[in-house]
Formats: sequence, structure tokens, C-alpha cells
Amino acid sequence: MSYGTVTPAIVAELRAIVGDKNVWTDEARLDTYAHDETSISEYAHAPEVVVVPTTTEHVAAIVKLANREHIPITPRGAGSGLSGGAIPHLGGILITLERMNQLIDLDLDNMTITVQAGMVTNDLAHLVAEHGLFFAGYPMSVETCHIGGNIAENAGGGKAVKYGVTGRYVLGLELVTPTGDVVWLGGKLAKDVSGYDLKQLVIGSEGTLGIVTQATIKLTAYPKAASDLLVLFESPRAAIDLVPRMLRQGIVPTGIEFMDRLSFQTSCEYLNETLPYHDAGAMLLIEVDGHDPDVVERDTYAIGDLCEKHGALEVYVAEDRNAIERVWTVRRNIPEAFKVASPVHSTEDIVVPIACIPDVLPELERLTAAYGMQIPCFGHAGDGNLHAKLVKDPAMDHATWLTNKDACLRELYRFVQGLGGKISGEHGIGLKRKKYLPDVTDPVELDLMRAIKRAWDPNHVMNPGKIFDLAPPAGG
Amino acid sequence: MSYGTVTPAIVAELRAIVGDKNVWTDEARLDTYAHDETSISEYAHAPEVVVVPTTTEHVAAIVKLANREHIPITPRGAGSGLSGGAIPHLGGILITLERMNQLIDLDLDNMTITVQAGMVTNDLAHLVAEHGLFFAGYPMSVETCHIGGNIAENAGGGKAVKYGVTGRYVLGLELVTPTGDVVWLGGKLAKDVSGYDLKQLVIGSEGTLGIVTQATIKLTAYPKAASDLLVLFESPRAAIDLVPRMLRQGIVPTGIEFMDRLSFQTSCEYLNETLPYHDAGAMLLIEVDGHDPDVVERDTYAIGDLCEKHGALEVYVAEDRNAIERVWTVRRNIPEAFKVASPVHSTEDIVVPIACIPDVLPELERLTAAYGMQIPCFGHAGDGNLHAKLVKDPAMDHATWLTNKDACLRELYRFVQGLGGKISGEHGIGLKRKKYLPDVTDPVELDLMRAIKRAWDPNHVMNPGKIFDLAPPAGG
Repeated sequence: MSYGTVTPAIVAELRAIVGDKNVWTDEARLDTYAHDETSISEYAHAPEVVVVPTTTEHVAAIVKLANREHIPITPRGAGSGLSGGAIPHLGGILITLERMNQLIDLDLDNMTITVQAGMVTNDLAHLVAEHGLFFAGYPMSVETCHIGGNIAENAGGGKAVKYGVTGRYVLGLELVTPTGDVVWLGGKLAKDVSGYDLKQLVIGSEGTLGIVTQATIKLTAYPKAASDLLVLFESPRAAIDLVPRMLRQGIVPTGIEFMDRLSFQTSCEYLNETLPYHDAGAMLLIEVDGHDPDVVERDTYAIGDLCEKHGALEVYVAEDRNAIERVWTVRRNIPEAFKVASPVHSTEDIVVPIACIPDVLPELERLTAAYGMQIPCFGHAGDGNLHAKLVKDPAMDHATWLTNKDACLRELYRFVQGLGGKISGEHGIGLKRKKYLPDVTDPVELDLMRAIKRAWDPNHVMNPGKIFDLAPPAGG
Repeated sequence: MSYGTVTPAIVAELRAIVGDKNVWTDEARLDTYAHDETSISEYAHAPEVVVVPTTTEHVAAIVKLANREHIPITPRGAGSGLSGGAIPHLGGILITLERMNQLIDLDLDNMTITVQAGMVTNDLAHLVAEHGLFFAGYPMSVETCHIGGNIAENAGGGKAVKYGVTGRYVLGLELVTPTGDVVWLGGKLAKDVSGYDLKQLVIGSEGTLGIVTQATIKLTAYPKAASDLLVLFESPRAAIDLVPRMLRQGIVPTGIEFMDRLSFQTSCEYLNETLPYHDAGAMLLIEVDGHDPDVVERDTYAIGDLCEKHGALEVYVAEDRNAIERVWTVRRNIPEAFKVASPVHSTEDIVVPIACIPDVLPELERLTAAYGMQIPCFGHAGDGNLHAKLVKDPAMDHATWLTNKDACLRELYRFVQGLGGKISGEHGIGLKRKKYLPDVTDPVELDLMRAIKRAWDPNHVMNPGKIFDLAPPAGG
């Protein structure tokens, strides 16, 4: 029971498929593809070969070969993932979609765009904005992440309170199945019940059910007006307590982002940014957008009033795009800033029912004390999705850190489960969380997932060992 | 290779599970459960026994028994389906959810409601409206259909242009799997990527992947303002041409319903309703709602202006709920009216990209002439989802009707496929369309569906023979 390896004969076959220039075996390059943005080096592992397809036919031929030879395949977008989903931990063939970034079809009549999966999210957003159209996906890695990666992880981001997550906007996708067949799922349709919704099953399946090679995305009219509120609070709890209260008013902001002091200070220092808000204990960054400037203005001030009534220290309203963008840059760069300032850490992605988020902070304080680590916290508070970041104290030895992190995560995850929450809202399970998933998941649910994986990928070659383990194929 | 049958011993076991009163075997009652709202009697078939559970534990025990004995199970909600999904065409055990209609939890803080699957949609809507909350699901059968049925079919309806279909509002569901296990999928969460999205796979799977016994539904603030426009046109084409034009303006109405003359006249006659619009060739019923009366009013008049500029005969604006409700009653009763006026017919449910809907009407006119039948048309034009209804000419003999209907449907479905559309937008495949599905579906996609069904339901007992056929279980 083992996987096949990438022999010189396999490399020659890969070269025949995509051309010599697009098959890489030199160690330096392989190392580049050994990791994603998951910070902990314990997961890094180089592939045996990197293949760079430019067409769906290339991808299908590579997958057919790998399936025939029982070689693990790891699909990779921009490598901006935060759960190790694109790490080739079993070696094998890494397929990078980075050159599959072409526009296929911009359909203004149906308000859709069809692109190859390797298109950068911001490139798509800018492309459609020129036509007055809007793509509502806005992961914090929007400047680098790929549409295909967003789909693989069902990415959330900064606009999900109002617009929902990636899956709502994927009308269709082209999939290369684990056995190398090519199939389009969905279409330019507002609704469709012609058989099972396989498209929605593939979204968020972390590349384990096939490789998304193209996608048709639903667009909407570009919101004509937007404003942002930056609201300062004395403490994280004061900020978080306001979030469910705000949502119950019936006003739906585009996003409600939370940053505690350590998070925004770390990002400001990294960016050499001097926002004059260093002394607040926490802040909410609240965006409002819409087609009617009067309504946006009224909602903005209604939110501002609510914040002032319920404990905000100060409320700033930023109505020009430059001022807005400066604050969002600070928010988006928190992960990168911590990567530099505290390279040994674990970025968590817990999600709880919105009314329960005030309960999370006291538990994080308790864990901070219990395990001798810092736990800065930021994230998409309006979705109940918080990125608590376990940061290693430089004075702690590495073995203790690993033990403490593991124990702390198990406690945190069980606490989240107790609130009716889940351990990942948008980053995925990947490699990083798979050992914890069975702790907090009904075994019946895990068995149903595994049954689908086995049925679609009989040789377990498609991103194997992500989300959960299965036995490797017989033979090989 | 055959299914087991319902012996007296099986009936005794069923009685032990749910009590004597809740197991029905008398012929008159069995006949009541032989059909749903699919008009064509060719599909009617009585079950061998009807079982009436009141708890999830009942359902699980019945399914375990059926799975052990290889007896087909047909889950049934209100029987309001339009594709034969609840018809027990192989006999076996029919499980009706009609008495599983209890409120489990109304959570005002999280803006969710959890109910048993047999709750009537309108009962849920009224229940939450008392608290200023809104359920956006609005199938035309809203007065009778169950939440569980809406989930099984991923029902659309009259508000989907703005609010989307049922699946967007199902945050969690309790499923009894085909082998009788009970599992909760999802939760009160805005987002969740902790493993595959099995909840979304179950939604729209027509009861073939298990029985939904409870669901947690996302609520929103009740829209404070609403108005409806009734817009008359000389011809169906003039009405339909306006729909994609309207959507491209960036105004998003709640719904855009289309009715041709024959459809609304038939319904008015059935209801003894005297709307003064009998001479129009077609009408659009356009609803606008929102939280801001000024914005609703402005959008309403913007839509009205657009209609007047582009060929509308007359635009009526109904701003009081009574006037609105009268027109919606006409719209909702079209299917029932045809059931009485022309009992032999086939209600279709095609869905096409929104920009393609003007292409559909000429094709329907061509088919009308080619096959000697009437094809009235109505439906959710704003979603590209049209209910063309093939109506038998009373002078045509039944054998010719069946032959012509079959040929006509094959032509229509291929035409729809050519436009990038699908054969069902909200009614499902069920029994009625399963023989046509392979004509218009990639065999790879069908194989992926079948693989999931086999993996979850090894004995093929859960609503077997719906959507597609599989071989019956070995033994039995």
C-alpha cells in the first residue's frame, strides 16, 4: 500500500504533455513550492516535480498520468493559503495554476465573467470594474490570491457580512476530476436543480475532489457609494460586544472587521504607517456600500451613533477612497506583519454564531494566561469569524511551544464547538487542522465526507491527506 | 437483484416504532399518497405502507429497518412537488413528515429559526414576522409546502431575483442518512469550511441522500416597505424582452414574474377573479421591497419608467398589501387552475441565462405549431426560469399526446441546453424528467452523481429511481 514515485520516465511523460520548459525538477525551485503561507515550518515539504500547465487539456493529461501511476497530486494557486492545502507533503507532482490566468469570456448581457482559475482576484475585480461591474469576493490576500484558490477554500473576506462568501458568486466551474476527466458543473444560471449540486460540493473541498481549471463568476452592478467607519474602543470586549447589537438593528454593513491593539500596532509598524489611533485597545473597521449615496450616508451615521451610544471612544468616518484604503491596508497586512515580527505562530480561524462572539475573548484571555503565549485577535467579526493568533514567546523553547500550542488548540476548538461553532470559517482544514477535525466533528459526518472522496478518487491521488487521511492506493 | 417487500412482520415492526395509529395500510389512505402535484397520472403508484413519525428517532428507526430489509423508502413533505419526487413508484414504505411540524428554537439574537422539516412554509414565515423577522423563501405553494420539501428541491419562487433560492437560507440541517444514522450538518454560522459542504449537497438532492428532519433557517429583518408593479404588454415577447434590460440597470427587484394571457386568464377564471387586464397579451408582476420606503418608491418608479419607455401598454403600481395580494393570488394559482381546466398537461421548468430568455418564446411558438398543443407560459422570468406548460388538446388521442409530448420535450430540452440552460430550475428531476436528463447532461457529471449515491446509500433504498436509476440491491 504505497504511492508511486516520480521517475525519470514520468518526468519525460510530463515534458511531453506541457513542454520541457514547464516541468521543473531543480531543487531551488522545488523548495519554493514546499510551503504556502501557513507559518509553521513543520509542514513544509518539497514536491518531486513542479508542472506548469497553461490549458485544461494539460491538467487533464497530467492527472490521468498521476492517477495511472498512483502518484500524489498537489494543486496550487498563489500559495497564499493558510492551512497547508497546497503543501505537497507526500512529494509527488505539484501542479501550479499560475500561468492559467486568461480571461475566457466577459458577458456583459448576463453580468458574468469566465476566467482560468489562475487569475489573480484583484485582476478580475479591476477588469470588471472598468465595465461598471463588481465582484464581491474580497479575501485579505486579494492582491495575490487566485480565483481557483478562493473556490478551493470557499474564501470569505472583508465584504462577506453583506455579500456572502465566494460560493455565492460561482455560477459554474470546470473541473478536472481525480481520474482526469473534464466536466463543467453549473452555468450562467440564477438557479438549477437538474441533479445534485456538485459545483457547491467542489467549492471549499480544498482541491481534494479535483482541480478547478475555469470558473464563471456572477457580477453585480458596481456600488456607486461607499464609506468606512473606523471606531475606537477602550478594550477588545467593548468592541466585540457591539457587533451582534449592530446586526440586530437591520442595517447590513458590507463588512465589520475587528483588530485588537497588538494586531493593528504590529501591522502599522510593519508598514511604517502612522495612523493616529495607537492608544485604543481595539478597533472596528466598518464598511457600508450601496447604489444610493443618501442611504449609504444615513446607514453610516446610524452605525456611528450606535457605536457612540455603546462605548466607542471615537468614531471616524472616511468617505474618500484613499483614507479608506490606508486603513484597509493595515487590516490586510496583519498576517504578513506577524510573519515578520513573530515567525513562529499559529493563525486560527474559528467561527461562532454571531451572538456568541463576546464569549470568545474571555476564553482567549484565559488561554493566554494558561499557556504562556500571546494571542492577538483580529478578523471578520461581522461573520463571527475571528483570527486568534497563537504567538510563541521568544523565551519559550520550541518543544514546549509545540506541546502548549497543541493543548491550547484542543481546548480552544472544544470551546468553539460548545458554542455551536467550527474550527475554520475560511482558511480550511488542510494539513494544519486535520488532526483536530475528528475531535470536534460527528464521526458520521466524517464518514460521509470520506465516502465521497473514495467514490470520486479511488486511487487517493488528488491532494491526498488534506482535511482527513485515507489509506494510500493498493499497489503503486 | 430485487427490493424487499412490506410483510406483516415489517408492518408489526413499524407499529412498534411509531405506534399502531401511525402506520397506515388501508387502500384508501395508500391511494392518497400515490401521487404529488405532478399532473400526469402515468406516474401514480401507491406505497405498501404509510408511516407517520413525529420524531427524528422514529425516522432513523424506520430507515434502519428499511435499509436492513432492502425496502424502498419514499420521504414525503406536503406532496406539493411537481416532478414526482414523492411518488412511491416502487411501493415500499412512504414516510410522511406531515406531523413533524414543531418549532424547535427561535433564536432572536442570532436571527435564526430551527424547525422540524414538516412545518408549512407560510407558518414559519408568519411565526417569524411577529418578531419583525423575514424568511425570504416564497415558492408558489407557500401556503401548503413544507420547509423540508423546499430543502429537498432547493425551491426557488417569487422572491429569488433579490434573495436567491432556499439553499442560501439553510444554515444547518439534521439528516437521517440512507443507513439510518442521524447527523447535523452546518450550524448557526455565517461561514464554515471545516470539511466538505455536505449540507449544500443534500439541499436539492430530492430526498435521495437522506431525509431532512430539522433545519436551521437564516432570517433577516422584515422589509419595512414593498410595492408591486403590474405591467401590461401587447405580447409575451414584448414583456420578456424587457427583463434582461431591467436587470442590467443595477436595480434588483425582489421578483419579476411573467404570465402570458392564457395563464392569467385561466387562473382568473378558476378564482372567479375580475382583474381588469384581460386584454393584454402578457404581464409582468414586479415586486420591490426594502427597508427604506423612499428607496422602494424611487426604484418602483424607475422600473415603471423603464417599462413605459420600452413598450408597456400600461403600468399599475399597487402599494397596499391587499391589492398586491390579489395579483399574487392569481399568479400562485396558475398551476391549480390548469389542473382543473386541462388536467392532462406537463408543467416544465426550464432555466436559461437571463439574456437568453427572449429566445425561448419563438421556440415555444414553433413547438406549439409543430406538435398541435397549447403551450401557455409563466414563471420566474427574473431568474430566467420559465414554466412552459404543454397542454393536451382535448381532440388529441392519448397515445398521440404521449408521443408528441415526449418528442416535444426532447426538442425543448436540447434547445435549452444549446442556450447554456438546464431542464429544471426549481421543480427537480424526480421521476418526471429522469429519462431526459442523460440527453442533456455530461455523462461524467451523471457518473459523479451516481458515485455519491452509491457511496451513501449502498442498498439503494433512499428514494430510489429519482433523478437517475441505479440497479436495485443484491439479495433483498
